[in-house]
Amino acid sequence: MSEGQVCAIVGAGEGLGVSLARTFAAEGMHVAVLSRTEAGSAQALSAAQETAPSGRHQYHYADATNPGSLESGLAKVEAAVGPIDLLIYNVRGSFTFKPPLDVTADELRAILELEVVGALAAAQAVIPGMIARSGGTVIYSSATAAFRGSPRNLAYAAAKFGLRGVAQSLAKAYASKGVHVAHVRLDCALDVPIVRELMGDRYRQGQTANPDDVARSYLWVYQQPRSAWSNEIELRPWTEEWTF
Amino acid sequence: MSEGQVCAIVGAGEGLGVSLARTFAAEGMHVAVLSRTEAGSAQALSAAQETAPSGRHQYHYADATNPGSLESGLAKVEAAVGPIDLLIYNVRGSFTFKPPLDVTADELRAILELEVVGALAAAQAVIPGMIARSGGTVIYSSATAAFRGSPRNLAYAAAKFGLRGVAQSLAKAYASKGVHVAHVRLDCALDVPIVRELMGDRYRQGQTANPDDVARSYLWVYQQPRSAWSNEIELRPWTEEWTF
Amino acid sequence: MSEGQVCAIVGAGEGLGVSLARTFAAEGMHVAVLSRTEAGSAQALSAAQETAPSGRHQYHYADATNPGSLESGLAKVEAAVGPIDLLIYNVRGSFTFKPPLDVTADELRAILELEVVGALAAAQAVIPGMIARSGGTVIYSSATAAFRGSPRNLAYAAAKFGLRGVAQSLAKAYASKGVHVAHVRLDCALDVPIVRELMGDRYRQGQTANPDDVARSYLWVYQQPRSAWSNEIELRPWTEEWTF
Amino acid sequence: MSEGQVCAIVGAGEGLGVSLARTFAAEGMHVAVLSRTEAGSAQALSAAQETAPSGRHQYHYADATNPGSLESGLAKVEAAVGPIDLLIYNVRGSFTFKPPLDVTADELRAILELEVVGALAAAQAVIPGMIARSGGTVIYSSATAAFRGSPRNLAYAAAKFGLRGVAQSLAKAYASKGVHVAHVRLDCALDVPIVRELMGDRYRQGQTANPDDVARSYLWVYQQPRSAWSNEIELRPWTEEWTF
Repeated sequence: MSEGQVCAIVGAGEGLGVSLARTFAAEGMHVAVLSRTEAGSAQALSAAQETAPSGRHQYHYADATNPGSLESGLAKVEAAVGPIDLLIYNVRGSFTFKPPLDVTADELRAILELEVVGALAAAQAVIPGMIARSGGTVIYSSATAAFRGSPRNLAYAAAKFGLRGVAQSLAKAYASKGVHVAHVRLDCALDVPIVRELMGDRYRQGQTANPDDVARSYLWVYQQPRSAWSNEIELRPWTEEWTF
Repeated sequence: MSEGQVCAIVGAGEGLGVSLARTFAAEGMHVAVLSRTEAGSAQALSAAQETAPSGRHQYHYADATNPGSLESGLAKVEAAVGPIDLLIYNVRGSFTFKPPLDVTADELRAILELEVVGALAAAQAVIPGMIARSGGTVIYSSATAAFRGSPRNLAYAAAKFGLRGVAQSLAKAYASKGVHVAHVRLDCALDVPIVRELMGDRYRQGQTANPDDVARSYLWVYQQPRSAWSNEIELRPWTEEWTF
Repeated sequence: MSEGQVCAIVGAGEGLGVSLARTFAAEGMHVAVLSRTEAGSAQALSAAQETAPSGRHQYHYADATNPGSLESGLAKVEAAVGPIDLLIYNVRGSFTFKPPLDVTADELRAILELEVVGALAAAQAVIPGMIARSGGTVIYSSATAAFRGSPRNLAYAAAKFGLRGVAQSLAKAYASKGVHVAHVRLDCALDVPIVRELMGDRYRQGQTANPDDVARSYLWVYQQPRSAWSNEIELRPWTEEWTF
Repeated sequence: MSEGQVCAIVGAGEGLGVSLARTFAAEGMHVAVLSRTEAGSAQALSAAQETAPSGRHQYHYADATNPGSLESGLAKVEAAVGPIDLLIYNVRGSFTFKPPLDVTADELRAILELEVVGALAAAQAVIPGMIARSGGTVIYSSATAAFRGSPRNLAYAAAKFGLRGVAQSLAKAYASKGVHVAHVRLDCALDVPIVRELMGDRYRQGQTANPDDVARSYLWVYQQPRSAWSNEIELRPWTEEWTF
């Protein structure tokens, strides 16, 4: 049912981005990956190409901390492959745990730029076309930090809260135009390289979400019929002791 | 992937129950429908049989207001068709809108019996087997009333709140045993006969959820890989002006 | 400002009930305590009498698991002292931690009777008079379990969820008649005898809420001016590592 | 109990700021008002002076869109009057309703600067001293938009979501040091000049919150004993038909 449609992934690094590229390519979609460096998206692009060699998969430059760059990157995707049916905003800033008193204004601004300002800019680049075609989907990758303040990572929590506000506002504003906006919250660690590194000795594979499994639910969101959409989705592994 | 598995639906009336029976039968599953009268499940049973004539679909008696009856009905399903892989608890009490001061203790008890006590009893009938087999899914049909008090239907809200408490508690208790418990909230009216009747002149088909579309998300929940489960799912039509 | 008004406390045992009785007596209110045995309320009644000897404090019989008993007990308070201005529903069932599979239908019914059916019955006994007088307050003592399922105490969670549904529904239905309904959630252990016993070696006084401090916020809720009411209040000690 | 303590209000305009200044001055506190122009705080300062002529009330310059300015303004308050016991962050940007597609990146950045970056900067200016003195309170004025996306005011919703993330993170990080951080949500329109103007013909005094009444709950938050703190407070008038 998704054959020939176009999926653009902003922030297609080596973790979830690779699984998303593979999953949507396997559905017969053309997958465009956008990031600041071509190397950053290389693994995701390869995954799409290997999965579905006939798809018109491609890399385009975009810097998610620059709204104009997002706009022009996504415009290039549309010029090259056609209208974007699915936009996945999957960026991730580097973050370090620190007490709130040590967070600088510039650190906070940088992550807000990525998670809030960029999130809106990317949506603004594709939603007018989706409205014109009476259909389209925007999915934001998010985290439990969008629902709960964090004593050790205030900047990340503030930004993810803000992202959820963006997603809900867009969802409410454009649903009746056929645009499905969803906020996918991972209530867990992902089994990807960066997490293995961050967690060090605390890492347990069985207690993380497999990114291919996570990507399957992105596909489900994309394929939901419009009379029964989900707007806020949570995902956690069976081993997670969830408190929310 | 679900071929030959067993789905039991408690409360398979003429609305969503029919769509659920059809959807899971189409996946190659054996569908057992349980209700107080065979006539009450007849439409759902027919839907399963017509969709997949080779499935061992069947009706069994169960009264959801009687824990013992739920237990024996579900035991009969397992004796007849095999272990239940998916239990859907989809009961619905009759309800009338009235001011909270007019709700009687017996009305409140009756709906709590159905939505809370029965919900636990049904789960208790199948979860031990699921634990023994390291896998299984329980899905509760719920509503926005599980999240928000209602000035016109206190009993329904109190019961749905309670149901959500049951679902969350079970989900947390047995996830690590491989049992996936989900609470599916419909944030909308369903396009089914009872709703058309209740809404009367206010009914607008385009503003309701199609039960077949809703059933697709039940299927998705059932098929989610265990490293990335959703426990609380909301569904609403694209036309819904949601406030939550 | 509360001088001469009438406060009825259902479930005025040795813990928070004593502090509530003392706090409202100190405001010049007449305090009626209701429980199944006079001995059960003796400490609360004494606290009120010692704090304000001139108040018409009294004990009345009520069994919170019996709606008719709640109704007649509260009617006796009004006959003896005058219209009830503040009803505090502060009951507590005995509970034992156990896996959800071990919770019996009767255990679940018993706690629903106390926390949901009784909660409505008590409100129904006083709200008509409050509406007639265009003012009055109903406060429910609740817990974090009203917001989060519990893998070790499903029955308590289901009941507290249900209680919250009752409180929200009443609040919405009767606010415009001048009736203020509030749900006070203690996100912590209380420094009272039963908790010391339950927690045993894990008990740390500094990590519990002082019941006199908790009672002060009940007073604040009662005295809030009607143009700025709170309906859901959370309380936790400064030492609590809260996750919600 | 608050006699002689110091309250600093950032954003003390003609509405709620005036009531806050009056309320805390009446408790015997020294009230410092901070804003970009002295004229902007004139009414609040007068209210404090008239209420309690002996208090050392004063105006200090601060631009809430400039972290350094907030820091130096609050430092001047402490130099002039003494350590700040209570900081109220009560800023408000001008806002216009518009579709999300029309919100510019700069508009979004401006409100994030005020509601998120400024909120953290102001807290950082006072919390180290509060930790050193083992006590202090920070209250953020917020709105229902912190809980729900808005199809007509995405920027405001994103910013208030972010503010809530800041408040929760600070609350969790510094509670155990004696610092009480609270997020007060007004789930209603306020009876203040700007709202009367914005609402025009839709304005109904009886359906708004009186700012003096709102200020009383700020006082209550400030005076809560530390063993039973509230961190998230909602306020709405009795006439509000709340949906959350």
